[in-house]
Amino acid sequence: MDGNARDEDKLENEFNNEAEGEHDDANKNKERGGELEMSVEQMFEGRQVPSWRNQLTMRALGVSFVLSVLFSFIVMKLNLTTGIIPSLNVSAGLLGFFFVKTWTKLLQKSGLLRQPFTRQENTVIQTCVVASSGIAFSGGFGSYLFGMSERIAKQSGDDGGFKNPSLGWIIGFLFVVSFLGLFSVVPLRKIMIIDFKLTYPSGTATAHLINSFHTPQGAKLAKKQVKTLGKFFSFSFLWGFFQWFFTSGEDCGFASFPTFGLEAYENRFYFDFSSTYVGVGMICPYIINISVLLGGILSWGLMWPLIEKREGDWYPAGLSPSNMHGIQGYKVFIAIAMILGDGLYNFVKVLIKTLTGLFYQFRGRQTLPIANQQSPDASDKLSYDDQRRTELFLKDRIPTWFSVAGYVTIASISTIVLPHIFHQLKWYYVLVIYIFAPTLAFCNAYGAGLTDWSLASTYGKLAIFTIGAWAGQNGGVLAGLIACGVMMNIVSTASDLMQDFKTGYLTLTSPRSMFVSQVIGTAMGCIVSPCVFWLFYKAFDDLGLPESRYPAPFATVYRNMSILGVQGFSSLPRECLMLCYGFFGAAILINSTKDMLGKKWGAFVPLPMAMAIPFYLGSYFAIDMCVGSLILFVWQKLNREKADAFSAAVASGLICGDGIWTLPSSILALFGVQPPICMKFLSRGANVRVDNFLTT
Amino acid sequence: MDGNARDEDKLENEFNNEAEGEHDDANKNKERGGELEMSVEQMFEGRQVPSWRNQLTMRALGVSFVLSVLFSFIVMKLNLTTGIIPSLNVSAGLLGFFFVKTWTKLLQKSGLLRQPFTRQENTVIQTCVVASSGIAFSGGFGSYLFGMSERIAKQSGDDGGFKNPSLGWIIGFLFVVSFLGLFSVVPLRKIMIIDFKLTYPSGTATAHLINSFHTPQGAKLAKKQVKTLGKFFSFSFLWGFFQWFFTSGEDCGFASFPTFGLEAYENRFYFDFSSTYVGVGMICPYIINISVLLGGILSWGLMWPLIEKREGDWYPAGLSPSNMHGIQGYKVFIAIAMILGDGLYNFVKVLIKTLTGLFYQFRGRQTLPIANQQSPDASDKLSYDDQRRTELFLKDRIPTWFSVAGYVTIASISTIVLPHIFHQLKWYYVLVIYIFAPTLAFCNAYGAGLTDWSLASTYGKLAIFTIGAWAGQNGGVLAGLIACGVMMNIVSTASDLMQDFKTGYLTLTSPRSMFVSQVIGTAMGCIVSPCVFWLFYKAFDDLGLPESRYPAPFATVYRNMSILGVQGFSSLPRECLMLCYGFFGAAILINSTKDMLGKKWGAFVPLPMAMAIPFYLGSYFAIDMCVGSLILFVWQKLNREKADAFSAAVASGLICGDGIWTLPSSILALFGVQPPICMKFLSRGANVRVDNFLTT
Repeated sequence: MDGNARDEDKLENEFNNEAEGEHDDANKNKERGGELEMSVEQMFEGRQVPSWRNQLTMRALGVSFVLSVLFSFIVMKLNLTTGIIPSLNVSAGLLGFFFVKTWTKLLQKSGLLRQPFTRQENTVIQTCVVASSGIAFSGGFGSYLFGMSERIAKQSGDDGGFKNPSLGWIIGFLFVVSFLGLFSVVPLRKIMIIDFKLTYPSGTATAHLINSFHTPQGAKLAKKQVKTLGKFFSFSFLWGFFQWFFTSGEDCGFASFPTFGLEAYENRFYFDFSSTYVGVGMICPYIINISVLLGGILSWGLMWPLIEKREGDWYPAGLSPSNMHGIQGYKVFIAIAMILGDGLYNFVKVLIKTLTGLFYQFRGRQTLPIANQQSPDASDKLSYDDQRRTELFLKDRIPTWFSVAGYVTIASISTIVLPHIFHQLKWYYVLVIYIFAPTLAFCNAYGAGLTDWSLASTYGKLAIFTIGAWAGQNGGVLAGLIACGVMMNIVSTASDLMQDFKTGYLTLTSPRSMFVSQVIGTAMGCIVSPCVFWLFYKAFDDLGLPESRYPAPFATVYRNMSILGVQGFSSLPRECLMLCYGFFGAAILINSTKDMLGKKWGAFVPLPMAMAIPFYLGSYFAIDMCVGSLILFVWQKLNREKADAFSAAVASGLICGDGIWTLPSSILALFGVQPPICMKFLSRGANVRVDNFLTT
Repeated sequence: MDGNARDEDKLENEFNNEAEGEHDDANKNKERGGELEMSVEQMFEGRQVPSWRNQLTMRALGVSFVLSVLFSFIVMKLNLTTGIIPSLNVSAGLLGFFFVKTWTKLLQKSGLLRQPFTRQENTVIQTCVVASSGIAFSGGFGSYLFGMSERIAKQSGDDGGFKNPSLGWIIGFLFVVSFLGLFSVVPLRKIMIIDFKLTYPSGTATAHLINSFHTPQGAKLAKKQVKTLGKFFSFSFLWGFFQWFFTSGEDCGFASFPTFGLEAYENRFYFDFSSTYVGVGMICPYIINISVLLGGILSWGLMWPLIEKREGDWYPAGLSPSNMHGIQGYKVFIAIAMILGDGLYNFVKVLIKTLTGLFYQFRGRQTLPIANQQSPDASDKLSYDDQRRTELFLKDRIPTWFSVAGYVTIASISTIVLPHIFHQLKWYYVLVIYIFAPTLAFCNAYGAGLTDWSLASTYGKLAIFTIGAWAGQNGGVLAGLIACGVMMNIVSTASDLMQDFKTGYLTLTSPRSMFVSQVIGTAMGCIVSPCVFWLFYKAFDDLGLPESRYPAPFATVYRNMSILGVQGFSSLPRECLMLCYGFFGAAILINSTKDMLGKKWGAFVPLPMAMAIPFYLGSYFAIDMCVGSLILFVWQKLNREKADAFSAAVASGLICGDGIWTLPSSILALFGVQPPICMKFLSRGANVRVDNFLTT
């Protein structure tokens, strides 16, 4: 999975930075030792680079398929629970390596091995998995797409119409929008990677990881890491399985464990024993986990209790807890305000960087301050590594006419097909989006190259507000959501795939095999992701309801943004607008403080985006994540070296095991197999009453 | 705590053997390195042995008091839950060392230290704690003494009368019976230890431990072990505290966790998250844990369900589950049959060994086959160590007239006082017991010296049947139980204290300071143990009820033995006698098979005594213990050396932490503070009904 496929821009970037930082360090150390003797490509000099057709092996595509199903499940689960998706690069890398290595070892022993496992093949797998599971995010199953459903519409209490998910139209929709991003960036790859020498931290980190796997001592470490991952994978899977037995009924099982007492539980402060989010906490930097916890304390510990005291004054008393005109409205809109404030700040920041960067690029490369800083390759232009990489990157060309023709063809089909799927979306809205999309895709890919930040969901929100307002009361809510989907798919794919090209560049993988792998991966994702979503949707009746196991928080958030775009602020409850202004401003203020304080002190300033998520959900997952942080912290104190080498594997194991348990768990639910036991938590008084009831 | 203070003979011995084996090995290894250069006493040559008065410091007595309270709690908890009490020697040794060492370090820093911490002082503490917490076992709070209460009498459904516990008479009773054992063995110490050179494995192991603490590298290891113990102590204490919050009401909390499903839970197969028994499982040899589990499977998995099918045929239908004429009768009497079969076998075996041993002793020491095998000191009679030890052991004498006078005085007082406390016990019963007691005490002390097996509870059972039958219907049930108490106290104290004298001999501690320490310890125990029991008794209303947290299984077992002694077999339900014969025979058969197979294969034969305990209780604690075994097993596979050095400390920490949590927990219960939450486990159907009930 690529790090760019995230819901909320800021978070994903932090995740990537972390992942990158880690691997860069690890690799730098390794290389530092090697550099005295030889560079990376000198180490690989003896090994032949296979032709682009030989990089695309059947086994690679098979493994990619297995992994893309695995990661689709994980991403889907994360989408539908909190919307926080950490970087799964390392796990994808490790698992891909593990599968093919096991396979080739087996063949080698039986003497049937025709082609050894190369890093190019590894890159092809990585790329395919990223392309495929990226769709699980950009398909909007936890945001815009599910936000169109009747269930979310009812919760929001608007009359903007709905379109319930159905396997047919989702697959069709994804097929007509997902390939555009691909064609829009392919012609630019030489400019971005060879000419501009952009860093693409995530892509670079992945390349380092893959390169290191294929050196002898790297392979040894990787083997150990895979073993650790496997151990925690099994533990996490079995733990999920064990928990299942005790979850017959609502508020049953470990996920409802009132660790800090019943009152704290009412306010969503509890440790829910989810190994996924403990793992997520281990991958995320400390400041994210602390921000989430802070946000939870601020909202559920302070603000909501205070606002609830105004019930009957600020908003009518006796509303259902999910009514948008009651307390729920405050929760959703204040969270939206904070997310938008953060998004706007970062959008402007990255845009300024992008424009300055481009300005310097075109004025002449000798004064290239930004890209230069981050690109160590720029300093020694004619190094052996660079020469060899550039040579191979330019060998297999993809003609520009091919990508332009592809874009125009797909865009035309899309413009005709989309209004037939969604009647609210006029063909001219689509056309306008497609005219602007390549520019925005380029901006996003360039920005991600500089800063590793993909602003996909911010561009999506832009589309919600503009198209929503344009369509107005005439189906604007739905039109906005779909426009968001179209935009997000293009923009997100563009930056994801450019990261992959960087990885390919650094591992001497042919752009042509990368492109084919991306096309195959995207096609896979267009089918796998909807099916996985469909499984969840059919298996869990309460999907999307606020207090259920899968509340899909961003579905509500996205729909309400769209409503906001169409209806303006009139729909908000009393004082809510004031509070929203406050938090919008606060988000910008916090961000600018963070940037002004510089790297050292700014690291202690919380992230508004991370703070906003628990506003709606409560802080139970924040506690999981902090537990993960704590484990990592203690581990680092005890044995820094080991923690750095294995924490990512442990975290990946925890996330993947629990994630894949959702497959059998949803199949069990589909077949109507219910858990036998309810582990219930009753107050003393309620328990006495229940005991009396049960004995009579 | 000394290993001899156990309920059931066989178990205790296995525990001791284990503890001994472990430490012996550890010490042998250490000594093996040292022996090439010098013997133990040569290593200690430079250090002066303090006079006997200086060995009895105030700080030692203070620490002894703290530890005896701690261990009284632990032993009481174990008494009242399952009656399985592992050897707590190591924990007592480690904790004693830790307390005094911390104290002396503190004083040393402040410059106030007058006297350094010596191994003699350490032995004095150990002895005092053993004497004191031994009373918590031999006081019969989980067996004969509580078996006299109305609550147990009601369960047994007999009309043998009752005497409810009350602080006053318990303390009085203990004071008049507990010192007799002490006076009966003191005169024999020279014969047993110097002349016969008996091994006393537990005493020897404790001495090795104490000696090792006071060598430089031993102290270093001890410090690490203490640290480990402390860590697990805190964990176990906090875990107990955390669990408490979820136990408002019956069948609530982790102790009722249906780990293997609700049906298995009904048959008492579940992991009850008790860190105590996980620790016990780590200390007990694998074969005990497996025997317990086997017994549980055999009884609750197979026999009881089969017998329950005969309800209405073999026994009347519709009886309360604790009625002795129903299924409960089978459970209790089959367990008794097995315990008696095992007891009888081992009694005969140890008696034969004792008599042969004595025979060879008196025929001349050159042909001393049994003691010789086990006593390495015997081979080099004039070694430096032996010389020095003998010299110091004989220096401070205790005149024989003193101990004889003491015995006669206390026996006379006791003979007069006891019939006033228990009207059922005639003065001539007591007199008869006191005439035979010294002989039996000698036998037990000698047997323990040879085999490490204290048969205290077997001698107690002997008293139950003889005195019970003698008294007959005329209050025989109670008379039997009290007679058991009188006998057990004497016999158990005798072997405990002789083990201590062996420890004292090997650590150059003066017998006089040992004696004083034992007297003080016994007096402490006579007050502390009843108070601790009183706390439990007052705090937990359901103490002694079969399904409660503290079922005190042996109280029921002992009372029913006494009933059996008085009423004969007439009170048993149908076919129960046949089953009892079968299991009695099986116990003897299994034991003789075990002995015949020899050390190697016999180790795989289960222990009947251990199998009998879950017959009554179910196998939940067996599962805890097997978890402990499993942890130890895996640990040993991973790192044998570390596991051997630290497993005892980990286990002690787990046992002590959970044990000491019972102090605050019973105080909370006394003050009526109830836990706020009930973690309840409902079947799916029941949960639906409860949810409906709670919402309406």
